[in-house]
Amino acid sequence: MSTFGSIFRVTTYGESHGKSVGCIVDGCPPGLSLVEADIQIQLSRRRPGQSNLTTPRDEKDLVAIQSGTEFGITLGTPIGLMVRNQDQRPHDYSETDLYPRPSHADWTYLQKYGVKASSGGGRASARETIGRVAAGAIAEKYLKLAHGIEFVAFVSSVSSVVMPFIHMEDDRLFPQDFWELLSTIKREDIDKDPVRCPNKEVSERMRERILEAKAANDSVGGTVTCVIRNVPSGIGEPCFDKLEAKLAHAMLSIPATKGFEIGSGFKGTTIFGHQHNDPWVKKDNHLGTKTNFSGGIQGGISNGENIYFRVAFKPPATISQAQNTATYDGVDGVLAARGRHDPCVVPRAVPIVESMAALVIMDALLIQQSRKTAASLLPPISNMPPTMNAMFSHSTEEVKDETST
Amino acid sequence: MSTFGSIFRVTTYGESHGKSVGCIVDGCPPGLSLVEADIQIQLSRRRPGQSNLTTPRDEKDLVAIQSGTEFGITLGTPIGLMVRNQDQRPHDYSETDLYPRPSHADWTYLQKYGVKASSGGGRASARETIGRVAAGAIAEKYLKLAHGIEFVAFVSSVSSVVMPFIHMEDDRLFPQDFWELLSTIKREDIDKDPVRCPNKEVSERMRERILEAKAANDSVGGTVTCVIRNVPSGIGEPCFDKLEAKLAHAMLSIPATKGFEIGSGFKGTTIFGHQHNDPWVKKDNHLGTKTNFSGGIQGGISNGENIYFRVAFKPPATISQAQNTATYDGVDGVLAARGRHDPCVVPRAVPIVESMAALVIMDALLIQQSRKTAASLLPPISNMPPTMNAMFSHSTEEVKDETST
Amino acid sequence: MSTFGSIFRVTTYGESHGKSVGCIVDGCPPGLSLVEADIQIQLSRRRPGQSNLTTPRDEKDLVAIQSGTEFGITLGTPIGLMVRNQDQRPHDYSETDLYPRPSHADWTYLQKYGVKASSGGGRASARETIGRVAAGAIAEKYLKLAHGIEFVAFVSSVSSVVMPFIHMEDDRLFPQDFWELLSTIKREDIDKDPVRCPNKEVSERMRERILEAKAANDSVGGTVTCVIRNVPSGIGEPCFDKLEAKLAHAMLSIPATKGFEIGSGFKGTTIFGHQHNDPWVKKDNHLGTKTNFSGGIQGGISNGENIYFRVAFKPPATISQAQNTATYDGVDGVLAARGRHDPCVVPRAVPIVESMAALVIMDALLIQQSRKTAASLLPPISNMPPTMNAMFSHSTEEVKDETST
Amino acid sequence: MSTFGSIFRVTTYGESHGKSVGCIVDGCPPGLSLVEADIQIQLSRRRPGQSNLTTPRDEKDLVAIQSGTEFGITLGTPIGLMVRNQDQRPHDYSETDLYPRPSHADWTYLQKYGVKASSGGGRASARETIGRVAAGAIAEKYLKLAHGIEFVAFVSSVSSVVMPFIHMEDDRLFPQDFWELLSTIKREDIDKDPVRCPNKEVSERMRERILEAKAANDSVGGTVTCVIRNVPSGIGEPCFDKLEAKLAHAMLSIPATKGFEIGSGFKGTTIFGHQHNDPWVKKDNHLGTKTNFSGGIQGGISNGENIYFRVAFKPPATISQAQNTATYDGVDGVLAARGRHDPCVVPRAVPIVESMAALVIMDALLIQQSRKTAASLLPPISNMPPTMNAMFSHSTEEVKDETST
Repeated sequence: MSTFGSIFRVTTYGESHGKSVGCIVDGCPPGLSLVEADIQIQLSRRRPGQSNLTTPRDEKDLVAIQSGTEFGITLGTPIGLMVRNQDQRPHDYSETDLYPRPSHADWTYLQKYGVKASSGGGRASARETIGRVAAGAIAEKYLKLAHGIEFVAFVSSVSSVVMPFIHMEDDRLFPQDFWELLSTIKREDIDKDPVRCPNKEVSERMRERILEAKAANDSVGGTVTCVIRNVPSGIGEPCFDKLEAKLAHAMLSIPATKGFEIGSGFKGTTIFGHQHNDPWVKKDNHLGTKTNFSGGIQGGISNGENIYFRVAFKPPATISQAQNTATYDGVDGVLAARGRHDPCVVPRAVPIVESMAALVIMDALLIQQSRKTAASLLPPISNMPPTMNAMFSHSTEEVKDETST
Repeated sequence: MSTFGSIFRVTTYGESHGKSVGCIVDGCPPGLSLVEADIQIQLSRRRPGQSNLTTPRDEKDLVAIQSGTEFGITLGTPIGLMVRNQDQRPHDYSETDLYPRPSHADWTYLQKYGVKASSGGGRASARETIGRVAAGAIAEKYLKLAHGIEFVAFVSSVSSVVMPFIHMEDDRLFPQDFWELLSTIKREDIDKDPVRCPNKEVSERMRERILEAKAANDSVGGTVTCVIRNVPSGIGEPCFDKLEAKLAHAMLSIPATKGFEIGSGFKGTTIFGHQHNDPWVKKDNHLGTKTNFSGGIQGGISNGENIYFRVAFKPPATISQAQNTATYDGVDGVLAARGRHDPCVVPRAVPIVESMAALVIMDALLIQQSRKTAASLLPPISNMPPTMNAMFSHSTEEVKDETST
Repeated sequence: MSTFGSIFRVTTYGESHGKSVGCIVDGCPPGLSLVEADIQIQLSRRRPGQSNLTTPRDEKDLVAIQSGTEFGITLGTPIGLMVRNQDQRPHDYSETDLYPRPSHADWTYLQKYGVKASSGGGRASARETIGRVAAGAIAEKYLKLAHGIEFVAFVSSVSSVVMPFIHMEDDRLFPQDFWELLSTIKREDIDKDPVRCPNKEVSERMRERILEAKAANDSVGGTVTCVIRNVPSGIGEPCFDKLEAKLAHAMLSIPATKGFEIGSGFKGTTIFGHQHNDPWVKKDNHLGTKTNFSGGIQGGISNGENIYFRVAFKPPATISQAQNTATYDGVDGVLAARGRHDPCVVPRAVPIVESMAALVIMDALLIQQSRKTAASLLPPISNMPPTMNAMFSHSTEEVKDETST
Repeated sequence: MSTFGSIFRVTTYGESHGKSVGCIVDGCPPGLSLVEADIQIQLSRRRPGQSNLTTPRDEKDLVAIQSGTEFGITLGTPIGLMVRNQDQRPHDYSETDLYPRPSHADWTYLQKYGVKASSGGGRASARETIGRVAAGAIAEKYLKLAHGIEFVAFVSSVSSVVMPFIHMEDDRLFPQDFWELLSTIKREDIDKDPVRCPNKEVSERMRERILEAKAANDSVGGTVTCVIRNVPSGIGEPCFDKLEAKLAHAMLSIPATKGFEIGSGFKGTTIFGHQHNDPWVKKDNHLGTKTNFSGGIQGGISNGENIYFRVAFKPPATISQAQNTATYDGVDGVLAARGRHDPCVVPRAVPIVESMAALVIMDALLIQQSRKTAASLLPPISNMPPTMNAMFSHSTEEVKDETST
């Protein structure tokens, strides 16, 4: 449905032809400094019309906080967020309405709801993601301030133009500079590039590919890679709400996504266990792993290393070419070319991926903090058996380290 | 946490060293014929000791229904399911306990809970999946009887031995026989092969690869592909509970998984929009798609075509080799070889993938049926505008077709 | 938190000093005729300034639908609802801010959130109920159209002025005219009276009591009784979501409530089992009960009879008298009189009680419809044992009757 | 459904004729000392056969922990709990099966599920409460150890025999000794009395009333009052999950309950606001209230005072008298007397009420602890406005006091 999260929870609403789109963010910690600009920054990275690579529609998408703050400080109560739609009129009837658009949600929405929204696939509109991004920006701000957690996503491929690190070299899954990239890459750097790819040379080829597709009235897909840094260990709720399971859920709920892989991902299935296992090693005052094929998660729980994953986005279904297809009534025909559209969504998908990741981490972190606080209030157990006890004393120390991060 | 689903809901419990493992299945439709054998069949496909490709531990894993049925018929009340553990004693303290096993959940469980279960990563044990498979078997039986829905998973790769269909040929993502395979493959056929791969020649090479790994005290990963047939259109709950999002959540909650892709998946990102779009075409009395790169889902909602997806499983972390790593206290050392284990989990993962898929479809179907019934009880709207109206009359017919399936 | 319901789900937001208050209604059946006027009617019954019995503040509380409908028809997608606040400025600092108001939420909100909203108890404001009433109006409209279900609440006591039926006469809990009242009372009749009490003579005394309290700068409490008619049997989800449990939850979540009783309620505890049991009797083509001490619910499930319950509202905490109390810092002092307020909330509580009841019934009904549809799609069981079988054949017939209502 | 709670969550299963009844407790803090005896103590207080006031059925109801602990310490993973049923055979067909028992759940279960369990109202059986009590015992143990929270329930009325404190004297709702009783009453004292009423003289009259009913093959109802002491302030999740709303939900989900009132309850509706308001007063190092008509909760959030409430239980529907009623087919007739039963359930309901209260407090406390920890990790806000700031500095201190409780 339209609610995501358990104790940090976002509920979204809105189609492209209603008065507004927006969301309610429930469970935000009180005492967080929050003004519209904190949210606007990510909305502006998401909005159309940023460059000639995206749709020429130019929407400002200005957010207005309806509730949950006073004097720029969160109250702990639900935060209502609203972004007006500029074009609110349902569109006029046209010939093209006879055809469900191929690979769009027109037909499935009709099958599901039995009524047809003006925009076809109602909530399948990209405008639905505004609520997600707005909510994610709040989660991000909290996580940055309280834990120093950072979310950085970037475009790792466009069509068959792929950043080199995701090719396997020799017997290694990733070249050395991949790990460095994950540890150092910054959002500012990403945004300097119109494709949001951190590799200048590759980006240039991606840009060309997108413009080719645009010129051909066609579209191309791609992948977004995201790294999350400084997540404390212990986050994630097995068995069903493992951290990677929630991330996968979050990512596959973004429109146009077709795949998700974490850590070594699909390529990791091709190497041997002795290569794939991440050996433990002392790092400062805690344990870490030498390699990180696990992607920062083991047994569904964060281990303190960088969490990284990759999301596949299909080529957008809206293309400006005529298409052979059938009408709702099953009559073969040609769906005429439509207007302006995004030839490639991945550059604009970058903040959406970050936002959904932030929603997942925020909720999981709050639940784990509750558990830790709860456990810390219990009296110590005197007759703890050696196996459990050794571990316990050890872990208690670790717990302290973490909360002070 | 340990509950999955909203109105068809499974809650699991159990570690490998407790008295039993099991689950409670809530929301099962009443009047379903259900005896232990219906569940046992999938548990037995999951259990260890089925061939020399899996762990030699031989556990019977016999399930006992505790509640929710009488005379072999479901009452509609929660179904308690229990499978006894054969070895219930926590293990003795040993040197190896000083080391968190690399890429295991030992350390993350300790970080999360602050106490260490005998088995290390408590619920990260593969025995946890027993509850899922038992619950999934119930969902499957209902879906088969009421809708003719079929779930068939199979091993599509082991290490770098890959079924040919997942290589791209020319400009096509899949060869023609891939689509045929999805439409025709049967569970009986799968089970004739010890690797559970439907391609005899490939299976033989997979078997060799697994035995090589076993001989080398090593392990290998692989992928499982699953097809779901006869799912009615309209299933899936946007925006956050899109059908593929729930499937991704379900699959990534299975131990050892690293990736999920649906339909064209990651490969689909490399072709153009005009190639990727699935044109509509009349099929019998309803619309269908000519190609199926969408994987049976558009806008998060099933379109009536085959739903298919692929899941990546890493090589098992438990290997019988000595490993250079560090102790809990951060001291470098060598973790000695451990005992028997699965050199490759994918053959046993097949019924787990099917079961989790069945849980997702069941829950989504029940919610959609509720909506359809609710909508059908409303009086018709007289002044429906043409765009909505044309569609509405059309769709009503479709609705009827479906419920009569 | 701020979400209520499982598959028909409302999420609310808003304090009195933010830009707006409102809600998102998720899971509304598609194809329902819905315009703002359908919602406004209940909001206007709730708003302040309706008579000299309520607060003189006159707020229009006009609702605007943001999403989820087109051409006045629901799409099945989330319905965003917004009501602007007229006074959005946080108030100025004043002496009275040193005192947490007695029996208000000022102090507990501060304890909970650590920051203090301008209005004191932020979401404890009566304006929070706007979202509930708006959502409830949608549920009501659906339930009326699809099932003929009616919700009628009325004021059954103000202070010690009590409608006669809730005194016990002889050995009966209720006089005969109580049952008649429940079956016949209409919302139009209720609204003719400023106190919303259906007994003219009693209402007059209630009115006097309220005006006395108002004149004394004091406040009075009261009770609201609500009847729900035409609820199909089978609604309610044991064990934890019994219909009366959800109703109790809903009612006690309304500000200022202190109690809930269903059917015979507290008085029912004083009679014997043989008096309290409701004998079965044939009514038209189905079973019904002769008496209805059960309040229309047995075992947590509706039995088709009228559902009725009573809710206790305390005297409002805001009074225009000086009060001896202590400051936040624990210093004894006098909290000076405050401005205008409601001397009695029960007349305005009437639509809130109806709305919360509608939310409960709607959600429970959708879940049960899902179950019934699911069960109806199963093949019949041939070897049903006599006890189960007799019942089954019987009940199947009943099911048909109901869905055709 | 059969799950209660959000992050401390219990899911129950089981009817009286299955193999066992039990539950899964998810979200229990790790590191809690827990053995079967901790749970058994409350189960034994609940079980039948404790005195001649309850049913003569003598069931041991021994609980077995299936998972989630090792060496008597909780692991933080789901705790499976199981209690075997002694009589597992579905009963034989008899004449009485033609009649739905009056005021039982036989008919409503049949309407809901369409199949009839041997026991009639399947999960409406009192045995269903075993899972609740077992889970509640775990919550209670944690809350006692970590926060010193105490739950004490007692019988406050049987039929019309009522403990004096719940009569209004003069203009006061409760006599002075009522407040003293709430603050001092102990579970040990309650258990010395077979009726579980703390007033010796009244208890004697209650006992007589129960035995009269038993002799007359009849049944009587009553009320249970419960006090919760030492709950920290700040617990409860507005707007829908106010603490009293969750308590009401919990209590009305117990079989045979008809009402719930908190603090002044229904009687509180009859006094004036100036009498009902609880003035603030300094107590040790925190604020408290002079009176406590609020029942320890304001705005849905605990204020640190005693929480007390009262629950109404109807006379049990099972009586050993012949009853005029109708068959499932609507034919008038006489349902013959049945066997042994509880003439009054309130003495056995005492631990059930305590357990459900513990489940509510536990879940609400864990959520609030998460919020507090989250807020405490934020950097201080420099430009806090005076109204928010004064409060904030104040409240921060209070927060510290609380967590050290």
